[in-house]
Amino acid sequence: MFLWRISLLLLLFSSSIYAQEPTVNDLIGELQSSLDLVWIVIAGVLVFLMQAGFGLLESGMSRSKNAVNVIMKNYLDVCVGSLVFFLIGFGLMFGTNSTGWFGEDNFAFSSTEGSELGFAFFQTMFAATAVTIMSGAMAERTKFGAYLISAVFICAVIYPIYGSWVWGSFYEGSGWLASLGFIDFAGSSVVHSVGGWCALAGILVIGPRLGRFKDNSNISFTIPAHNMMYVALGGLILWFGWFGFNAGSTLAAGSDIGLIVYNTQLAAAAGAAGILLISIFTGTKLLASRTVNGSLAGLVGITAGCASMTPIFAILTGLIASVIYFWGDKLLIKLKIDDVVGAVSVHGFCGVWGTLAAGIFYADDMFNIDIIGIQLVGIAAAFVWVFPTMYLFFKIIDGLMGLRATTEQELQGLDYSEHHEQGYPEFQQNPLFHKDS
Amino acid sequence: MFLWRISLLLLLFSSSIYAQEPTVNDLIGELQSSLDLVWIVIAGVLVFLMQAGFGLLESGMSRSKNAVNVIMKNYLDVCVGSLVFFLIGFGLMFGTNSTGWFGEDNFAFSSTEGSELGFAFFQTMFAATAVTIMSGAMAERTKFGAYLISAVFICAVIYPIYGSWVWGSFYEGSGWLASLGFIDFAGSSVVHSVGGWCALAGILVIGPRLGRFKDNSNISFTIPAHNMMYVALGGLILWFGWFGFNAGSTLAAGSDIGLIVYNTQLAAAAGAAGILLISIFTGTKLLASRTVNGSLAGLVGITAGCASMTPIFAILTGLIASVIYFWGDKLLIKLKIDDVVGAVSVHGFCGVWGTLAAGIFYADDMFNIDIIGIQLVGIAAAFVWVFPTMYLFFKIIDGLMGLRATTEQELQGLDYSEHHEQGYPEFQQNPLFHKDS
Amino acid sequence: MFLWRISLLLLLFSSSIYAQEPTVNDLIGELQSSLDLVWIVIAGVLVFLMQAGFGLLESGMSRSKNAVNVIMKNYLDVCVGSLVFFLIGFGLMFGTNSTGWFGEDNFAFSSTEGSELGFAFFQTMFAATAVTIMSGAMAERTKFGAYLISAVFICAVIYPIYGSWVWGSFYEGSGWLASLGFIDFAGSSVVHSVGGWCALAGILVIGPRLGRFKDNSNISFTIPAHNMMYVALGGLILWFGWFGFNAGSTLAAGSDIGLIVYNTQLAAAAGAAGILLISIFTGTKLLASRTVNGSLAGLVGITAGCASMTPIFAILTGLIASVIYFWGDKLLIKLKIDDVVGAVSVHGFCGVWGTLAAGIFYADDMFNIDIIGIQLVGIAAAFVWVFPTMYLFFKIIDGLMGLRATTEQELQGLDYSEHHEQGYPEFQQNPLFHKDS
Repeated sequence: MFLWRISLLLLLFSSSIYAQEPTVNDLIGELQSSLDLVWIVIAGVLVFLMQAGFGLLESGMSRSKNAVNVIMKNYLDVCVGSLVFFLIGFGLMFGTNSTGWFGEDNFAFSSTEGSELGFAFFQTMFAATAVTIMSGAMAERTKFGAYLISAVFICAVIYPIYGSWVWGSFYEGSGWLASLGFIDFAGSSVVHSVGGWCALAGILVIGPRLGRFKDNSNISFTIPAHNMMYVALGGLILWFGWFGFNAGSTLAAGSDIGLIVYNTQLAAAAGAAGILLISIFTGTKLLASRTVNGSLAGLVGITAGCASMTPIFAILTGLIASVIYFWGDKLLIKLKIDDVVGAVSVHGFCGVWGTLAAGIFYADDMFNIDIIGIQLVGIAAAFVWVFPTMYLFFKIIDGLMGLRATTEQELQGLDYSEHHEQGYPEFQQNPLFHKDS
Repeated sequence: MFLWRISLLLLLFSSSIYAQEPTVNDLIGELQSSLDLVWIVIAGVLVFLMQAGFGLLESGMSRSKNAVNVIMKNYLDVCVGSLVFFLIGFGLMFGTNSTGWFGEDNFAFSSTEGSELGFAFFQTMFAATAVTIMSGAMAERTKFGAYLISAVFICAVIYPIYGSWVWGSFYEGSGWLASLGFIDFAGSSVVHSVGGWCALAGILVIGPRLGRFKDNSNISFTIPAHNMMYVALGGLILWFGWFGFNAGSTLAAGSDIGLIVYNTQLAAAAGAAGILLISIFTGTKLLASRTVNGSLAGLVGITAGCASMTPIFAILTGLIASVIYFWGDKLLIKLKIDDVVGAVSVHGFCGVWGTLAAGIFYADDMFNIDIIGIQLVGIAAAFVWVFPTMYLFFKIIDGLMGLRATTEQELQGLDYSEHHEQGYPEFQQNPLFHKDS
Repeated sequence: MFLWRISLLLLLFSSSIYAQEPTVNDLIGELQSSLDLVWIVIAGVLVFLMQAGFGLLESGMSRSKNAVNVIMKNYLDVCVGSLVFFLIGFGLMFGTNSTGWFGEDNFAFSSTEGSELGFAFFQTMFAATAVTIMSGAMAERTKFGAYLISAVFICAVIYPIYGSWVWGSFYEGSGWLASLGFIDFAGSSVVHSVGGWCALAGILVIGPRLGRFKDNSNISFTIPAHNMMYVALGGLILWFGWFGFNAGSTLAAGSDIGLIVYNTQLAAAAGAAGILLISIFTGTKLLASRTVNGSLAGLVGITAGCASMTPIFAILTGLIASVIYFWGDKLLIKLKIDDVVGAVSVHGFCGVWGTLAAGIFYADDMFNIDIIGIQLVGIAAAFVWVFPTMYLFFKIIDGLMGLRATTEQELQGLDYSEHHEQGYPEFQQNPLFHKDS
């Protein structure tokens, strides 16, 4: 029976670990390893589905003429990103880190060791998430090829370098921010701020969509989301995946998982509830798009401190995140910065807030000015490393091959011009424009 | 290496459990706790995604002019519900229960203990599910604010009180139905009947949608679902989440999980297959909406008895559930009760059936009249507690602030009037009406 | 407290295992069993969601007038398939196998043993997947009833018989291909090739859709996908579920899971990246539909060898799969074979490639001609068993009751003619046709 499994036992991967009879402690240790691996793999699988969440949210927020192009960016950046992270990024981020500034080995690693590969799998999903954040901000006007090259650069260099400061290494050594005691449990800074600053650099270089702002005036025009159901569904799928994102960052199956998922849930709920309260107090309509972004703001906010604050502070963190997102987004519009999905305010600004909150509400030692100071160093380091580098990178790409689609392509929609396919060829479209409310 | 995790070990949460060297039994016990926690958390995460399933199903069943409003109800009731359940509901349901009628402590609890928080997380997802059930039934004509207030009331009082009778307490004491031996493993009554009776009360108070029934005649008009793909996708996502719903109710990782998921699968399959058979025997068309509801009827039906009947009876339970849903739905239409998604027949009627089936097909002691009698007591208790209370509550809300949207809002669609956003602004809509088949 | 769980302990299912005090090894063994069960159940749940992925992909690739019909096929074949597999298929595939050619017992089994039922649950999901593959290929022109009968036959006979040769038995005995040492870890042949050859037989018997090819010429017309977002979302959901499909095939929680999920991710990524490279080198547009199919080709390709090759060869396997899919699909079009979703090239051809790759890149003993020879025997056996049998079966069905919808039904769309419901009744449709690019 089960001959196809016996063949596996003959593989080099399942080589005998014990020279002699295993002890009870060996057996227990092995079982714990298996449980840890099961947990990290499931968490990684949940994080993977966040790609579908981002794709739906970002595509839904765009016009139907760009729907395919937007989700194709999500689809291909996870593909190209996974391969590049295998070849370069993983080594830079988690390889032996003797200086504290980057990893030095394990590029295109050939390990077949279970827990190492499980870890690599989980981290690959994180890298793919970081790179996807900017795609929504830059939607509807970016050349596909130029975007993909930028995604490769982020996955290979930008994200892993900062990551190595905070989370490196898997092998020997440690990052300099980690050595300082910087707290970023699941990546408010490492993933979300980094993604947010990439997005900010991109949309500054590329400029707003045609018709988004009126020249020489303060008037802005809302370009309506083409499918609000995708936006809401995308938000729920992101939330779903975030449980893996935060709780999987334990990297092991222990009792802290309970606190992390509960904090994650409460902060997300508080983020959306915060938007509800803001709507009531400011007398504005309760937009679905804002509500969804409010919950995501709460999720970004709790990401750094989910394992080190009590539930009531998770609620507070989420509430404040919704406020930061709400006015952050308004600020960007006032500055005539066109962020299609609100990625800069949700991931960038709330990533900063989350990193700060992890310090302020640190359960063991609340409001400790030293802890908060180190958090500020880490926050500043992310911005200083990511924003100027990516701004320069986008400028170079723009000069070399053009980052922005032509006016003709933009008017026609990128689906047809880039992919020769349309999202909904059977249905009639009529573009609409509204003033911002 | 991994400094960011070492910092966690210094947290109060991971305090040393052992005064001295842990024994092998300690280690095994700890490992079992970790596995239990991993299981309940994953199950809770699956249950969370049911919100997306409900949102898609309910929104798809509605007209496009209300699509955003419907999914926003789902989105916000899980948010508001999670917070309210943390503050009030959890304590009422699972706090120390000295009388058997409600819990008395653990409101806004500040525990940081892993398994307690994992349990709270899982139960929060259940509460959110119970409250979401009514949103679909009341779709397309309910004021958003009034709906949210009702959701808060259900999550804070209605659901937890009944829940405390059946599932309380997590700490000391027990509910009076639990003490009688009432069987409701994963909540055919606690979640689904409760949700169904809330829905019934709501749609009786609010009345049918404009144009649903013709006055002074028996003619009814089907208002077609605006997107059947959402309906089918929503059904599959609900089914997916239901594995967590039923099998997570073990609250621990043990061998009963195998039986539960297999029974769940067979009952859902039998529910849809039952609709297929009914279509063949009655010579009616096989509606997709009915097929999806058939599988959900099977799932609701198996929820109470999934852990205590053999597979063949799970199939039988699912088949009978489809029959109950089919004619239950027809009965409501005959009574001119307008339930947009069939929530009353699927969750209310099949919840009753499932609770009964758990008694009738109880593997250890089938067709025992005493067991069945206790099941009937629990079924009656749910109706007597929930329906009149909610009917009164909805009447009060209606008097105070109005439960039903204005005719103008209903004609225009609630998306625009409530949220100032539309589901599909680029596409042309033409409302259609058909006679019921 | 928790009386509702104590009642469970009294069930026959949780009978005491130990006549006397359990030893430490007993406890560890029981814990391992629980962990294995948790893992296989979660993996099975992930595989279940692949039905939603298939439904979205296949429906999205079709025209809107057939959207409901396509997803209804997915919805009902998993229902009917689960019941049939319980009654017949499971026994034929995993029952005691004394001859090596089929199982002989455990039809409609009445076990309540956890790990056996967990296994049955997981395998039921596999059977449902195998049967769903053909639905997309035969979309837009197949009678619903005839399709369901074919699905029953595949789930009851075709799939289990071949499966028993490779994966049987769960009890006593073994399949003849397993005895030879045939490697098909998670089913490149057992599931995907089998599904692909069923699809090929079906579309040969039924012929192309009206207007797909021009008579007496080489011109073909692309019938555009009605919703590319569904296609992309379906692809991501399939990918998500595939982690359960491949890594759950360990049937136990061990260290090989790490390698499997990482290989799965890399091969899928390489499959899509391969399409990107082909587009660049051939100067054709990067179609979203092809990109999604490229990643699926990579996933099918790695399914057989995911546990027995190193990451770099997983990438190679995925890259080659994309090439095989790309030209395989072109070949079918040249032969005027109309496969709506590319199921034959993705699942059939790449299933062959994956089975071969598992032999060629077998980590322990690469490029061993004996191993490759056995792989070829298994590949040939799948085709010889499935294709002629299903071709004959479809011919008989066609003669008895008609397999193909009438021209009038096909023009009107199967949603209305078969189900009396439409996918998007509120939106205007205008069918479009393009020449193949």
